[in-house]
Amino acid sequence: MKLNKIMDQKNADAILITNMLNVRYFSGFTGTTGVVLATGEKRYFITDFRYTEQADAQVVPNGFEVVREDRQPLERVAELLKENSVKRLAIEDTSVSLSQFRSFEKNFEGIDFVDLGDIFLRERMIKTPEEIEIIREAARITDEAFAAIKPLIKEGAVEKDLSTELEYQMKKRGADGPSFDIIVASNYRSAMPHGVASEKKLESEGFVKFDFGCFYKGYASDMTRTIYLGSNPTEKHLEVYNTVREAQELAVKSVKAGVTTRELDRIAREYIEGKGYGEYFAHGLGHGIGLQIHEYPGVSFKAEEIVLEENMVITIEPGIYLEGFGGVRIEDDIVVKRDGYEILNGTTKDLVKL
Amino acid sequence: MKLNKIMDQKNADAILITNMLNVRYFSGFTGTTGVVLATGEKRYFITDFRYTEQADAQVVPNGFEVVREDRQPLERVAELLKENSVKRLAIEDTSVSLSQFRSFEKNFEGIDFVDLGDIFLRERMIKTPEEIEIIREAARITDEAFAAIKPLIKEGAVEKDLSTELEYQMKKRGADGPSFDIIVASNYRSAMPHGVASEKKLESEGFVKFDFGCFYKGYASDMTRTIYLGSNPTEKHLEVYNTVREAQELAVKSVKAGVTTRELDRIAREYIEGKGYGEYFAHGLGHGIGLQIHEYPGVSFKAEEIVLEENMVITIEPGIYLEGFGGVRIEDDIVVKRDGYEILNGTTKDLVKL
Repeated sequence: MKLNKIMDQKNADAILITNMLNVRYFSGFTGTTGVVLATGEKRYFITDFRYTEQADAQVVPNGFEVVREDRQPLERVAELLKENSVKRLAIEDTSVSLSQFRSFEKNFEGIDFVDLGDIFLRERMIKTPEEIEIIREAARITDEAFAAIKPLIKEGAVEKDLSTELEYQMKKRGADGPSFDIIVASNYRSAMPHGVASEKKLESEGFVKFDFGCFYKGYASDMTRTIYLGSNPTEKHLEVYNTVREAQELAVKSVKAGVTTRELDRIAREYIEGKGYGEYFAHGLGHGIGLQIHEYPGVSFKAEEIVLEENMVITIEPGIYLEGFGGVRIEDDIVVKRDGYEILNGTTKDLVKL
Repeated sequence: MKLNKIMDQKNADAILITNMLNVRYFSGFTGTTGVVLATGEKRYFITDFRYTEQADAQVVPNGFEVVREDRQPLERVAELLKENSVKRLAIEDTSVSLSQFRSFEKNFEGIDFVDLGDIFLRERMIKTPEEIEIIREAARITDEAFAAIKPLIKEGAVEKDLSTELEYQMKKRGADGPSFDIIVASNYRSAMPHGVASEKKLESEGFVKFDFGCFYKGYASDMTRTIYLGSNPTEKHLEVYNTVREAQELAVKSVKAGVTTRELDRIAREYIEGKGYGEYFAHGLGHGIGLQIHEYPGVSFKAEEIVLEENMVITIEPGIYLEGFGGVRIEDDIVVKRDGYEILNGTTKDLVKL
């Protein structure tokens, strides 16, 4: 139904889907080779002999017809376009390569092409209950992995070793893998917003920032926690930490359908500005998560303003980064509800001293 | 120099490189954001404030000028094109998306575009000594990880758990991560050429096939070993194993500069056919490895015939797959030498019974 709505919007007779994330989203197919062709009436899934069995199991229940083509999938698509008298075909211009497009032009004679732009990203913003359940599980795995490596967080530990252990603990709990390069950033490195784990060793006193997540059944989780290693945080450490935490919770508590992404960003940002740290929070407040680690909506003063809708899943992750001193970021995955929010992460946001 | 040669071949005044693997290959930059513009005289590396420090360290020694542009990299490229009177610009049509291309057309007025096709893949076929040294290390990590998990390979072990342990052991030894989804396929599943590790448990008797590798400093390794779990392999198990092993070693011993990819494939295939298993070896013999897990040359009866040159790095991986019974594949990474070959893997190819 979604695809027919999009055909109407784009005034197209059919949609060709070749990006595997979108193939998965619309057909349910989780393998690596296959193409979706949707017309007003029909849903075709074209794949080769290696995947027909998997396709029968995954896409037929979603109303797709499996078309086996071992040699020339594009020629087969061309035949289907003819059979269905397709004149205007919508394509994924943001992922189709120029050379792929040239082979479309060569194979699909007499067809006019229409760009889909970011319309699939907009569709994917609002999750189904099944998608939310998977993301909830991905967040749970993330929480558990963090708890499992706590005993290893101590002076002398190498950042990279901690990231290796986090990844291992996530995989042991069923994750497909990390959802991005894991950030473990200690002391001065914690002031880098994206300090991917390095060979640096943890010192006796200071912040250690962990930003990580996993893919589980294709969906991403994303959590940040900053701990204090040692027993003597300065007043400034506490002030910075508490400011970020307050800002994060203020923003989380403001989440509900009808609020806009920029309003959320502003709530956290104004709080941090009020404490005098505004210039040290240079990035956006968060982003959507789903089949990709960064999806729509961007929750940022820099991104398009989008009105939150029920069942969007976003991150809320303000931070303060003081060069030479250290930095703090706290991040949760949040489901937008009609009248509020659900936090998917269970890990404490109290300042943990280890 | 390579880039100037390509400009000549393509009759272009300049080359724009946006695919990050090729950016890395030609400039040395290992970060995530940056664009290379090469003209006959100049090498520009355009990036934003986050990466200028890294770029200074990585690309300047390779003769590149770092151009910082925080907002509109394409507008900056357009200026550079004008300054250098570029008329014909070569682009990576196989990785540039249609929408990227449209923004090139919009930003780069009066420029004619030339497709690079697969020319970078052809350049990347022949490795430098430095690249080979990195791949050698990646192969060593792969060997060591396999040795480390040997004690876990026993009846009742879950395939997925073994793949998790392999990945963990590779990361602990400095790998960036696995170079593809790890295959652990036991008993009937070993007859699937690409049986990614599943929830299946290892049985008391039968083949277990491991196909895995890592990325290390950006470069891939790729090794397959098949072991026999249990103590009572049948005659058929031994015959299948020995046939694959003989075929693999025959092909490896034939590797040297001047031999073609199809000749190698034929040597292994004819041996297997002679033993009556020809129809059960349906895939190609191997492929190049490098910044990607599958690079040129394809070493296969199906792929373009390419004459091997010194310092190509290829895999040799014949297999026999008998549905319902099991399958065997043995794979090494091989450096092509002027008069022979170097095997990068040290793991035994004797039939290991565990």
